[in-house]
Amino acid sequence: MTKGTHRVRGSAIEVLDRCAELDRYSAHASYLERVYLSPQHAAANAATADWMAAAGMSTWQDAAGNQYGRREGREVGLPALLLGSHLDTVPDAGSYDGMLGVVMAIAVVERLGDRIDDFPFAVEVVGFSDEEGTRFGKALLGSCAAAGSWDEDWWELRDKTGLTLHKAFHDFGLDPRRVGDAARRPEELIGYLEAHIEQGPYLEAADASLGYVTTIAGARRFKLSIIGEARHAGGTPYPRRRDALVGAAEAISTIERLAKASDCIATVGRIEVMPGAVNVIPGRADLSLDLRAESDQARDAMWSAMSADIEMLCEARGLELRVVETHRAPSMPCAGWLTDAVVDGIRSTGDGEPMGLWSRAGHDGMAVGAVTDIAMLFVRCFDGISHHPDEGVREQDVALGLDALERAVLTIAEGRP
Amino acid sequence: MTKGTHRVRGSAIEVLDRCAELDRYSAHASYLERVYLSPQHAAANAATADWMAAAGMSTWQDAAGNQYGRREGREVGLPALLLGSHLDTVPDAGSYDGMLGVVMAIAVVERLGDRIDDFPFAVEVVGFSDEEGTRFGKALLGSCAAAGSWDEDWWELRDKTGLTLHKAFHDFGLDPRRVGDAARRPEELIGYLEAHIEQGPYLEAADASLGYVTTIAGARRFKLSIIGEARHAGGTPYPRRRDALVGAAEAISTIERLAKASDCIATVGRIEVMPGAVNVIPGRADLSLDLRAESDQARDAMWSAMSADIEMLCEARGLELRVVETHRAPSMPCAGWLTDAVVDGIRSTGDGEPMGLWSRAGHDGMAVGAVTDIAMLFVRCFDGISHHPDEGVREQDVALGLDALERAVLTIAEGRP
Repeated sequence: MTKGTHRVRGSAIEVLDRCAELDRYSAHASYLERVYLSPQHAAANAATADWMAAAGMSTWQDAAGNQYGRREGREVGLPALLLGSHLDTVPDAGSYDGMLGVVMAIAVVERLGDRIDDFPFAVEVVGFSDEEGTRFGKALLGSCAAAGSWDEDWWELRDKTGLTLHKAFHDFGLDPRRVGDAARRPEELIGYLEAHIEQGPYLEAADASLGYVTTIAGARRFKLSIIGEARHAGGTPYPRRRDALVGAAEAISTIERLAKASDCIATVGRIEVMPGAVNVIPGRADLSLDLRAESDQARDAMWSAMSADIEMLCEARGLELRVVETHRAPSMPCAGWLTDAVVDGIRSTGDGEPMGLWSRAGHDGMAVGAVTDIAMLFVRCFDGISHHPDEGVREQDVALGLDALERAVLTIAEGRP
Repeated sequence: MTKGTHRVRGSAIEVLDRCAELDRYSAHASYLERVYLSPQHAAANAATADWMAAAGMSTWQDAAGNQYGRREGREVGLPALLLGSHLDTVPDAGSYDGMLGVVMAIAVVERLGDRIDDFPFAVEVVGFSDEEGTRFGKALLGSCAAAGSWDEDWWELRDKTGLTLHKAFHDFGLDPRRVGDAARRPEELIGYLEAHIEQGPYLEAADASLGYVTTIAGARRFKLSIIGEARHAGGTPYPRRRDALVGAAEAISTIERLAKASDCIATVGRIEVMPGAVNVIPGRADLSLDLRAESDQARDAMWSAMSADIEMLCEARGLELRVVETHRAPSMPCAGWLTDAVVDGIRSTGDGEPMGLWSRAGHDGMAVGAVTDIAMLFVRCFDGISHHPDEGVREQDVALGLDALERAVLTIAEGRP
């Protein structure tokens, strides 16, 4: 790799340049989409491997398409501190969700350089292959493989073209029978530390560049089906109507009202009505519900309240409610000792008293937490925007983030705090 | 046509058998959908033409795909009394909305037989090609063509595959430049008389087999677009959300509340949200609104109230409201002299004192009324259900309907009342 005149190795500018370079590996010319096991995934892994190698790391792609780099500590084969994030994106994505954490991790290894030779652990960087679940509808496929929690049922998941995950593995050059080789054992790792844009507005509101994560939200997702009766829009007087969409509308308002009055976040992102004709009363409405809270208890209590209210309003309208849970992830608390190192790192930047947040968004740590302790550093982003091309970070915040992450790793290496 | 042992020509059983036969011309094996300019449209026209021919009529398909049959009166070329209804359906339709009126009209011609030779008018039967507007979103295309009110802008209407109406005309074997040939001139017609299922519960509630229509409802349809901002479902706290779907839900509840408190009927039959991902706050919601009232004044006053309330609730949420009117039909009163003949027909069946209703549903008569007087005979249907596979009529009610329609035509022929 050539050291450009404007690019200092391990600098914030280099990090931002690399995020921009990764934008090129997109399935679409006009917007960014890079999904699991796609040609763009392979290309992003290759670029990332080059950067890892340039930072003095040995590199490999694991049996689930995750890209790794490793630099040994004071002995070869020591357990590793794992840094990183994911390289896949949502459709029409921004440039930083995931990628920033991977390239920041590589930059920190670059900055630490030979100092790692004295560390009582190895340093590894990972670019997870699937966190968003864009292609197969199941999130965290890459990090679940790394955590050894792969589920054989997933092989039959299909992308929107009907291709199975099993076939996609083959097409990518991976052997589905060997996916277990991607699993990390607890004794191989000392912890997982991820930098990520906040994807929310709290740091910006507090005028803080950085924050640390206390817990990753517990999430549940449901498909709610409200069943009424399709009837002629003109001929059916109100007392005879069982309008599934009017019931769904009440449910959506109820969901907002209850979540707003609590510390939970609930979103209905999808709705589909049948038959969906201008002049027919909807006989069925299917909604998605995404529910997040700091603790599993808060999340489950909110769902109990919501489902009871929705059940009641459906009953009052002669509608039937059917519920299928499509996703459940426990909240994942960050480890105290590792978070202390992150706090130490933030404090060393002079960016004021470090601010702790719970992450409303899911992250690879939710999966990795099954095999090792986790912690997260949040970097302020523009206007809380994420999952959108307007995602933005300031160079200055990235620079402070690199300082904090480097300091955190040193703190861990020094056995402090 | 073979005269089966169980099918008396011109009988209610034959009518119901023919409705069942038309069910076969569906785009889907598991449910009935027959839309404008589809192969199923052509097949239904062909079957209808066969039945018309068997009833002694000359037949033709007009320049807009409407299927006609004609039997001359006492001179060739007299103005015609037009009987009929439409042959197209909503998605997942029942067997009678439209089709019943076409096959009843053919049965009445069959029953009248040679008596028509002495009529002071010809008798025509029409199967309109598009009343529901299922394919191109614009209702009454077939009957508007017949009424000479075709709008050149409609050529650019598209079906859900993106195909224009213009292209669909070509593909069906019609010449768009000749659509004007479908227009009937007022001097060609003496009136239009349509039998149709009620599509409402009022006749059943009154224990009446038949009814006559006083007025066809005035209708307006709108596309409401509510524009907010797509954002990460987890990371965006409530004060920062501009959730288009939550706004749409409030709008739907408002629409129901206002219409319910009036004599109007309002239905949101379609909703679509973008981007439509489980974990993204909807940035846009598009709804259809179908609004009907007995008078145009009542309908327009209701729309003013609704749009003001929806505008207000959107503003309160930082959402933008965009409104496009997609359809507007004035209420269409039925002609007194023609309705008198229908009343005479109903009375002749001994089915009690004829009941008059305003039609909440739209009908081809709304278009045809531009060129000739109209009247309608309603046949009781099961539980008011329509636009649904559970549509049902009793054989006995169809039999009385045929008697009434036959008598109405004779009354007109006799110059009575």
